[in-house]
This record gives sequence, C-alpha cells and structure tokens, in this order.
Amino acid sequence: MTVTNELVSTYFKQTPAYKCWLNYDLIAKNDRLEEYKEICGDFNVLGDTLIYKSIKEELTVALHSMSHKEEVAESTFEDATLIISDSERVNLEDYGVEPSLFSSINEEGFLIKSFHNGERNTVLIIGKTDKGSLYGTYHFLRLLQGNESIEALHILNSPKNRVRMMNQWDNVDGSIERGYSGQSIFFENDQITSNLDRVKDYARLLASVGVNAISINNVNVWKVETHFITNRFINEIADIAGIFRAYGLKLFLSINFASPIELGDLQTADPLDKEVKNWWKEKAAEIYKVIPDFGGFVVKADSEHRPGPFSYDRNHADGANLLAEALESFGGIVVWRCFVYNCMQDWRDRKTDRAKAAYENFKPLDGKFHSNVILQVKNGPMDFQVREPVSPLFGALQQTNQVLEFQIAQEYLGQQKDLCFLVPMWKEVLDFDTYAKGEGSTVKKIVDGSLYDYQISGIAAVSNIGNDENWTGNTLAQANLYGYGRLIWDPDLTADEIAKEWVSLTFGNDDNVQEQVLSMLMDSWGIYENYTTPLGIGWMINPHHHYGPNVDGYEYSRWGTYHFADRDGLGVDRTIETGTGYTAQYFKENQEIYNSLSDCPDEFLLFFHHVPYTHVLKSGETVIQHYYNSHFKGVEQVKSLIEKWTSLEGKMEKQQFENVLNRLDMQLTNAKEWRDQVNTYFYRKSGIEDEKGRKIY
Amino acid sequence: MTVTNELVSTYFKQTPAYKCWLNYDLIAKNDRLEEYKEICGDFNVLGDTLIYKSIKEELTVALHSMSHKEEVAESTFEDATLIISDSERVNLEDYGVEPSLFSSINEEGFLIKSFHNGERNTVLIIGKTDKGSLYGTYHFLRLLQGNESIEALHILNSPKNRVRMMNQWDNVDGSIERGYSGQSIFFENDQITSNLDRVKDYARLLASVGVNAISINNVNVWKVETHFITNRFINEIADIAGIFRAYGLKLFLSINFASPIELGDLQTADPLDKEVKNWWKEKAAEIYKVIPDFGGFVVKADSEHRPGPFSYDRNHADGANLLAEALESFGGIVVWRCFVYNCMQDWRDRKTDRAKAAYENFKPLDGKFHSNVILQVKNGPMDFQVREPVSPLFGALQQTNQVLEFQIAQEYLGQQKDLCFLVPMWKEVLDFDTYAKGEGSTVKKIVDGSLYDYQISGIAAVSNIGNDENWTGNTLAQANLYGYGRLIWDPDLTADEIAKEWVSLTFGNDDNVQEQVLSMLMDSWGIYENYTTPLGIGWMINPHHHYGPNVDGYEYSRWGTYHFADRDGLGVDRTIETGTGYTAQYFKENQEIYNSLSDCPDEFLLFFHHVPYTHVLKSGETVIQHYYNSHFKGVEQVKSLIEKWTSLEGKMEKQQFENVLNRLDMQLTNAKEWRDQVNTYFYRKSGIEDEKGRKIY
Repeated sequence: MTVTNELVSTYFKQTPAYKCWLNYDLIAKNDRLEEYKEICGDFNVLGDTLIYKSIKEELTVALHSMSHKEEVAESTFEDATLIISDSERVNLEDYGVEPSLFSSINEEGFLIKSFHNGERNTVLIIGKTDKGSLYGTYHFLRLLQGNESIEALHILNSPKNRVRMMNQWDNVDGSIERGYSGQSIFFENDQITSNLDRVKDYARLLASVGVNAISINNVNVWKVETHFITNRFINEIADIAGIFRAYGLKLFLSINFASPIELGDLQTADPLDKEVKNWWKEKAAEIYKVIPDFGGFVVKADSEHRPGPFSYDRNHADGANLLAEALESFGGIVVWRCFVYNCMQDWRDRKTDRAKAAYENFKPLDGKFHSNVILQVKNGPMDFQVREPVSPLFGALQQTNQVLEFQIAQEYLGQQKDLCFLVPMWKEVLDFDTYAKGEGSTVKKIVDGSLYDYQISGIAAVSNIGNDENWTGNTLAQANLYGYGRLIWDPDLTADEIAKEWVSLTFGNDDNVQEQVLSMLMDSWGIYENYTTPLGIGWMINPHHHYGPNVDGYEYSRWGTYHFADRDGLGVDRTIETGTGYTAQYFKENQEIYNSLSDCPDEFLLFFHHVPYTHVLKSGETVIQHYYNSHFKGVEQVKSLIEKWTSLEGKMEKQQFENVLNRLDMQLTNAKEWRDQVNTYFYRKSGIEDEKGRKIY
Repeated sequence: MTVTNELVSTYFKQTPAYKCWLNYDLIAKNDRLEEYKEICGDFNVLGDTLIYKSIKEELTVALHSMSHKEEVAESTFEDATLIISDSERVNLEDYGVEPSLFSSINEEGFLIKSFHNGERNTVLIIGKTDKGSLYGTYHFLRLLQGNESIEALHILNSPKNRVRMMNQWDNVDGSIERGYSGQSIFFENDQITSNLDRVKDYARLLASVGVNAISINNVNVWKVETHFITNRFINEIADIAGIFRAYGLKLFLSINFASPIELGDLQTADPLDKEVKNWWKEKAAEIYKVIPDFGGFVVKADSEHRPGPFSYDRNHADGANLLAEALESFGGIVVWRCFVYNCMQDWRDRKTDRAKAAYENFKPLDGKFHSNVILQVKNGPMDFQVREPVSPLFGALQQTNQVLEFQIAQEYLGQQKDLCFLVPMWKEVLDFDTYAKGEGSTVKKIVDGSLYDYQISGIAAVSNIGNDENWTGNTLAQANLYGYGRLIWDPDLTADEIAKEWVSLTFGNDDNVQEQVLSMLMDSWGIYENYTTPLGIGWMINPHHHYGPNVDGYEYSRWGTYHFADRDGLGVDRTIETGTGYTAQYFKENQEIYNSLSDCPDEFLLFFHHVPYTHVLKSGETVIQHYYNSHFKGVEQVKSLIEKWTSLEGKMEKQQFENVLNRLDMQLTNAKEWRDQVNTYFYRKSGIEDEKGRKIY
C-alpha cells in the first residue's frame, strides 16, 4: 500500500527531536510487544470523516513504528481486534456498552474498552463523535508507549474545558514575538508558508494532547497581517484551516480593530457606527465562505498602543460586541483580551498600580458582553512573571465568558535556554480558591464553566514553538507544550503525572532516565525563581528582550513595573490602608490574607508589601538573607541539574543530549549573572553583610 | 553670464537652515554696503587651478548675495579692486608686500591686505599656495558678513595644525553610526549617492572653516564597505574625492584590516606575511591610479570586535606599518585609532580599568611606527563623556605622530536634541598642560607638532551632519561643526570669539539675538553637565542608544563603565595606593593633583576617587547635596534657555526658530527625567534628605 509506505518512510526520516512525544519507539518489553501485536495487528476505523482519515494515518504510522511490523494495514471490521469508531456509528450494545454511558461525557469524550467475544481480545475506541475518537486514539497510543497492559481497559474520558486553545504570536515576516525556537512555521517573507507538512505535524502534536483551537497570528496585528482577512491571504489560510480541521482544531485569526479604516476605506472604526457594523458583517460572511468552520477573532485592543474602541469613546463591550454580532450567525466567537493597562505610566506616580488595571477595566462591564464573546485573562495581574498571585478578575466576572491565558513561551522565565517546567505553576493557578461563591470556588471551576455556568470558556496559551528542529529550542521545553495540553484537558492531573508521561513518551521507559529528568523538571520552576526574583517581586529583568538580570531595568520606566527598593527595604505596598488598594479586588478571604503583613505567604510578600530588608519571613530568615541564600542556592541547583543531565549521556540520542546540555550551560551563566547582580545590588543598597560571608561584589 | 546666474539662482533657492554660516545675507549697514560694493565690485582671481575655480564661484555667489548687486562678474586684473592669488603667481613687491612675510606662514596660510595705489582702494588676498587663497577668501567673506571695515586690512594667518580632519561614521546603507541628523549624504541603499551637489555644499562648509581632510565611511567597516577599495566602488569614490579636492580636502577611507581575506582570497591578514604585504601594496597602487591625491586609510583594529593584528600575535605597530609601507611611496598616511580596550570586561573584576587601556596598549610601542602613521587618540580615556580628564597618551607618545580625536556628534551629550556647545570643552582639552616636557607642554602644542616635532599631526573629529535640511538636526548644533573647524585652525581663539562669529554669520548682527544666542551656547555644556553626571563620573545613560538617564544602565555591563555607587558613596578609585593606579599614567604634576583627594578638582572628583556622599567639595557642598542642587538647577537652566530662545521669535526665519524651540522642549523633558531619576536613585540609596526639601521620588 503506497500511501502507508510513504507515510511510514516519511516518519522514519524524522529525528526524535522533531517527533517529540509522538516518537512511537519500538516497544521494549517482549511480552508487551506480543500482546500489542496480537490486538493491534488488525485494526478497523469505522468512519470516513477527515478526522477518521487522520486517525487511520496516525495508527498506521504509530503501530508500524512501535512494532516494527512490516505490514500495518487496516483490516475488515469483522476481523479487527482494534476498532475505532463513535457512538453514532456502532451499535454499542453489541459490545456490551451501555449507551447511557455516553451521556455522562461531552462530545469530545471517548470510551476505551477491552472486549472479549470468546474467540479473541478486542479493544474498542469509541468517541462520542469523531473528535472523541481522535482523542481516544491518541490516549490509547500513549498507553502503548507507556508499555501498559491493554487486556482489561475501561476508560471513559472527556475534556474538562471546552475551549483549549493555542495562540501563536507569529508575524507574517516569519518572526515570532517572544519566540525562542526559530522562525514561524506558518509564515515567511510576508507570505504563508509552503511547508504545510510541518503545519500538519504541529496539528498532530496539538491534537494528541487535546488542543482544539488555534489562532495562527500575533495578537499585535501589524500592517501586512491586517490583510489576512482579505483575498490576498484568505485562501491560503483556508488551506491551513483545513489541515487543522482534520485534527479537530478550529482556526482563529487575530484581527486589527482598525480594519474598517485600513482595509475598508471607512473613515472610522467606531463600534457603534452603522457602516462599521456592516463592514464587519460582510467581512465575516466572506471569511465563512472559504472557512465554513472558522473559529472567530482574537483581539488585542486599546492595549500597548493597539487601536480599539477607546478612540471613539466606546468601551470594551462595545468593541467586542461589534465583532460578536458579525460572527454570531456563523457560530464564531470573539476572544477579547483583558491585557489592558496604562503603558505610558509615569514612574513618579505612586498611585497608579498596573496590577489593578484589568479588573478596573473589565469588572464594571460584567454582563454587558454578548454570549459569543470570551474575555481572555492572563493568569496574573502583571505579565507572566515567575510568581504572581492569581488575577482578581477570576471569579469577579460572573456573567461573562472567560478564558484563562497562560504563556508556554518562557518570555520572562528563561526563554527556553533556562529550564522551567511550567505545569506546577499552572496547577497552582488552577487550584487557587477565589472564594467567589464561597470555599471551593477554584479557578479551574471558573474556567471550565461550572461555577457560573458560562456558555463557553476554557484556557488559552501563548505557544512556545518555532521552526527549530525540536520545535521548542530546548528539547525539555517540549514538556511545557505537552503538559499544557494534558493539564487543560484534565486540570485534576498532577504535575508529576504529566511530567512522568512526557518523560516516558520522549525518552522511553528507562528508570534512571525517568527519575533524573522527572526531578529536573519538577525542581526547575523553583530553581529559576531562586536565582531570579523570589518573594513575588518580579521584573528586575533586562528591558525589551527580557532575558538576564537588570535590577533597575524597569524601575524608572513607563511600564508600571517597580520594586521601590531603597536603602531600607523593598516591595510594593498594595494594601488597602497604606498602599494602592489592589488587595481590595480579591474576595474577602484572600483579601484578608494578602492585605496582612503577617498572613501574606512568603512567596507573595513583596508583591503585596513594602518591607525592611530585616523583616523576618515565616521561614525565619530575614528578607535580605533570603535573597542572598536563594540566589546562592539557585546557582548550585543549576549545577546539580547539569550533573543529573550529564549522568544520562549515552542513554538517549546524542542530538537530544547535547541540545539540553548546551542550554544548561547557558542557564548556568545566566544564573550566576542573576546571583551576582541581584546580590551585589542589594548588598550595596542595604549594606547588610551575608551571614555566611559568601562573595558579593 | 549663464554660469553665474545658475550658481546664484541655485543658491537663492536654498533655505537659511541649509546654507548654515554661508548665508551671505544682504549687508545691513548702508555705509558698509557702499564700501563693500566699491571694493568688491571688481574682483579678479589670478590662478586657474580647481581651487581657484571654487574661489571664483564662492565669490560670485557671496558678493551677489550680500550686495544684491545685479552683475557680479570677474573683472580684469588691471581694473580689479579685489585681487585673489598666491605668492607663486603675483609679484608681491608690486603691492608693497615683503616676500619674506610668507616664510613665516605655512603653505595653507594667507595674507589679506588693503592696498592704496593712489587712485583707489584695493584688497589683496594672497595665499601662500592656492589652498591659502581659498582659506583667505573665506576669511575675507567672514569679515564682510560681520560688517567689518575692509579699508585698512593687514591679516597674516595660517593654520596651527597640519591635519584638520573630519571623520564621517556613515554606512553604505545610508545609516550613520551615532548620527542624529538624518541619513548619510554620501550613501544610500548600498550605493554611493547620486546627489553630488550636497557633497559639494558640505565641502564648501568644511573648507570655509579650514578642514583639509575627510574620511567618508564609518570606522566600523562592515561587509559591503569593505569593498570600497575595489572596482565596485572606487570610481564613484574618486568622483567624491574630486569634489573635495576642489575645496582643498584630501579624501581618506576607513578600511577593514581583514581585507586581504575578505577581498583577496588570502588565507590570512597577518601583517608580517609577505603575500599580505604585497596585497596591500597592489591595492594602494590601484587606489592611487584613480585618486592620485588619496589621503590614506583610517583604521579601527582590534577594537570592539573589529579584526586586527592581535589575531596573528602581532601588535598595533606591525598592523599600522603594514599599511604605511603600502601607502608610503604615494604620500599616503595611516590614521590608526587608539580606541582599544577590553569590551568584554567582567563587571566583577575591580582590577581592570578601561581608562588605562589606550596608554597600556600604545605607550610601549612609542617609536615603533613608521613616519607616515598617525595614532588617533580620543580626547579622554573613556568615550566622549560630558567631562573626562585628558587622555594620558598626550605627551606620553614622544616619537609617534599623533592626532587628537573629538566627537562633534553629541553621542552622549544630548544627540543634537539637547543643546551642548562643545568648543569650551575642546578648549579645555587643548589648553591642558600635560607637563610632558615641563610646564607649558599643552595638548595643543603636542598635536600641532611643535612640542615633539612630529612630522604630521593635528586634530580629527566625528562629524555631526546628515541629510536633514539643516545638516545637524538642531540648527544650533551647526555651531559645533563651525566651531570645530575654527578652533583647530587656531586653538588660541577663545570659545567666546568663535561662538560670536557663528551667531553673527548665522543669525545676522542684531545685538539682542547675538547676546541671547551667545549666552545660550556658552552656558550649554555646563547645563548639560548639571542635569546629567556632574563631578566627572559619566555614563549613567541608557545603554546602546545613549540618550536619557539610566543610572545603573552600565553598572553591570561588559563595557568597563562603572560608578560603584553604594549606600555610602560613589566614584571610581583610580589612585595609585588603593585604586586602579590609573593616575600613574600622568606626568608627575598632574599625577599628584589627580591622585590626591584634597587637590583633585571637583569636576573630576568621582572620576578619580570613591568618596562618601557626605564628602565636602571645594565648593563647600557635600557630594550628595551637589548632586541634588545641580540636577534641580540644570532643569531650571533649561527653562531659561527656552525663555531666551522664545524671546527671539520673529527675529529670524520661522523654520530656524521652530527647529530649535522644538529641540529645547525635548531637552526639557530629558532634563527633568535626568533630574528625577538621578536624584531619586541617590536619595533611595543614600537616604540623605535634600537640604532644601525639594521633591524627590
């Protein structure tokens, strides 16, 4: 079968770095191999949608690769021992499955079930729809890669979040805003890429972890990108939409709010203007003509100099609703970002607090948005710092659909040179109790829609991929891409579970490799925090490019990002009584904790309070000694990461090993620079000696 | 006469901003006008070199413009009342001039003399050579513009410095490194400009103040510019050389030391390699074939990552002599820059001192350079800060030709937004006594060659012009271009005299305008120093672009540029006993002053000493209070600049007025930012209150 051979041979040419967690290595254990061969040898995919075609391809490649079976081909339904279909296509009762089972899962869910008909073992992968089948297939393949038994399976699973989105910040010139893994896989030289194979492989990676939506261009929509929704580009974008469609992902575009002026020759983009409304309606119709399942628009408006409704004395609801009305009849949605603040702040102005901006801008508009608008809110009130409290907008918006925004790209977190596994951080955010409707009002319950019964909601994230061979610069940063998908599918998974899965899928099932890499991943966020900005203060980073230390780099800037360190102490007073009053944006339980110097958790201390260097932490250390200690410790921890990694030499492909080792070396240099600059800065300012007499400059 | 009409009509189309100090305004005083018309009405230029052609053109345009005389044309020698020629062409005794007079001036000198032959007044402008005639002509035209009497002139004048050079830092893509006045007038889009008219006008401006050499490309010679010395560019460069030749300027090129590799396909650029030597010799011959009076090469080698002899374990003398040998037989020279230091310094390393680098690199090589090599040394040991001591290399090199390098472009000094008249600063440098051969061993005597009898020496400077209508961004920055030329022609001119000349030539002879602009210019350096980095510390500026404050911007960098401020004090200890030992590079008299905390002048205090904030200055203020005071004062002074300028509205062309007003507004914003950031930084660090209780953040 030529197609099979072509697929397989293409696949075999790819490097492990490129294949990521879809490596499909030969099954190592012989007994499992036999088991898998028996069951998976004859599979049948019952269904003929685009998605089923993708499933067939994936199975072909995966089974071939894992078993090194020479012939992997679809069998007849009657002979099959692995059957993939959906609840609409098979008679469930034939296989002992109660149809009512499927009413407990949503339409992206699936059942994986072992079935014995006396003669032989059969595995059923039954989606509620074809999308469920796709996710079930990937789930099943993960089991095989983990060498788990498939003799007695009964897995019923469906995603907790309805919107599971990826935001590319790719520009049409091929660059990526905050991209650390090469150039765009979508665009080059002001054109859409011709390498659609790579786009397809990205779709596979995303689908394999359950991502179901993607916006392919930067939220900052520049001149050329504004034309994406015109004939100049839309047909080629439709081709890309088609690739993603076959893997269950809807395509979104970031748009320029001023499009009616820039594209339409209108004099205004006023959201209440009749011509503007018509213009967007016609524009939506044009788009849906070529992309019938187009997802909708992602919008950054009135933020960091991008145009928006403020120019016309309108508010964000006016702006979002304009677009929502245009998309409504086609089933499209508007993802409207809440990253709105005064980016021309005067550093002398101690009253304005950037942390308060999103809440102040959007809370008063709660309930004013159309039902096909989602507000997208960054996890913290600032901007993806190593440690931020959860944005107080979560829970505050009770009648407005919400999407939580994470950043997989490590903009402030080491830029995929430094190791920083982000799932533990994301977990903390999702598990955070807002107390919006009393105890248990966690962020995950807000964004999955259950707390306030949102119509649509979920999670989005800024991607970390580019056209580097390994997609993510640092191979270990693949774990963040993987982990993001897995976590938002099921926020109850632990970071540890997710990390283990990824390590096993990526590097195989060697115990020592698993143990070392797992500990490296799980420790990495804390390590990065140790040598950068512990106690919640953030920033202190090089302006513009955001890599490496610069303690005062943002201190006299217009970005609203200050630490207020003086000779006596540091931190931002955000209390109600003497500070900016930011703490008042939280529900009572959190407000009281954060507002209180004694109750505030150490890790957020400097975010909420300005304290003397001699303030004693809950740990018993003074603030200044904690700074010295954590910075010295952080560097030592990086050295131990290097030791752990070095011990794995020869246990993986050389390219993978060296990629990470090379990045770890960069991380060590960076960590030392952070240690010495931060310690020296605070030593010179405070005059307080390190208790342990270590070298400070 | 068509040529005249064309010249004149072209000239009349130019704006005052463009014409700079060659405005040639109508003479305001009627009696002077009559006097000038009588004498200048009939001029005769005796000589037919290219330079004499330029003189004729300049006189035609200038006299026409100043007198509004309808016919300005050359007269016969017999009828002429204004005669321009040189000592080789006229019989001096016919005019009562002792030929021996000319032995006291060098070949660029001139005599201007009134002569009465009974019948009529005649003015003679007699150069020693045609170049002298050119400079004499411009000198004479300045007298007319100043409305001075020309009835009884006897001026014998010649330049003190032999090399009077301009360095353009222009790139072939049209950008200018450290350019603040638009794009290059020489290059655009990787090609030589086609607008040679503008090049000619630049040549006129430079010649009018006596500049006699120009290098037209950036000392950082990038990929394309490396090809300037090949057929791809050399013929067009020869055209530019021709334009400058007609105004007495020799053209130089900055070259890439690695040219033999990049252009010649050699494996090495080793200066002692025979093939490399041959390559340069052949290259020189090629160049001189098309530019017979080519000046030579300007070289930045082994500096800030540019290639140089260090790659081959050779020293700077080896490198410079290689090129000198190639140019020698053609009369060319090598200008070898001494801006050599470790630009990858570790800020933790307190022993290395960038200030010491030039001396350490070049002093040991004194006497090792060929006679057609000149070492080009920046005025200070760092890099064109607002206040630096004079480089200790001046006087230290006793057997090596030297050129002093100034920077007219205000890289660190407000970038032609902020007003900063540089002649007072340059004067201080030139008048500085190095004590190299006892008292009176001033820098000006070193660079004019008299102290050590250098074969060739003089002064060079980085230009501040671009293709802005007014050449220099801020119209008042034209004064720096003018002043540079005038000062290096005669370092005994005072800054005040030069400023007065420029104001009068540019804005005419209104007393009030003269007074106000003069005081603005003369105060401006001190004002800029007040609101930026007084007491000699320097830096504290935004990295990379070098505009605006950033107190710690260079503190943890690799550039060797630190202030070492801590909670107790600031400054760099460069003393012999406890510091870097930099002071030892000076001759005894200066060494003792700088090395002594009590003797060191206030303005250099922090350059040489680390002192507590409470250290009392000679002025009686503490260091910290001086910082507060000068920063508050500086902003008030900028406001008074604005008041002065505003009072001149209507007294000059609107475009000129608004250009400067606009820049002064930017300066005020900048000054306030400097004031507040610097004061806040040191207040937070020192905890010491301002005695006057002014607002610090």
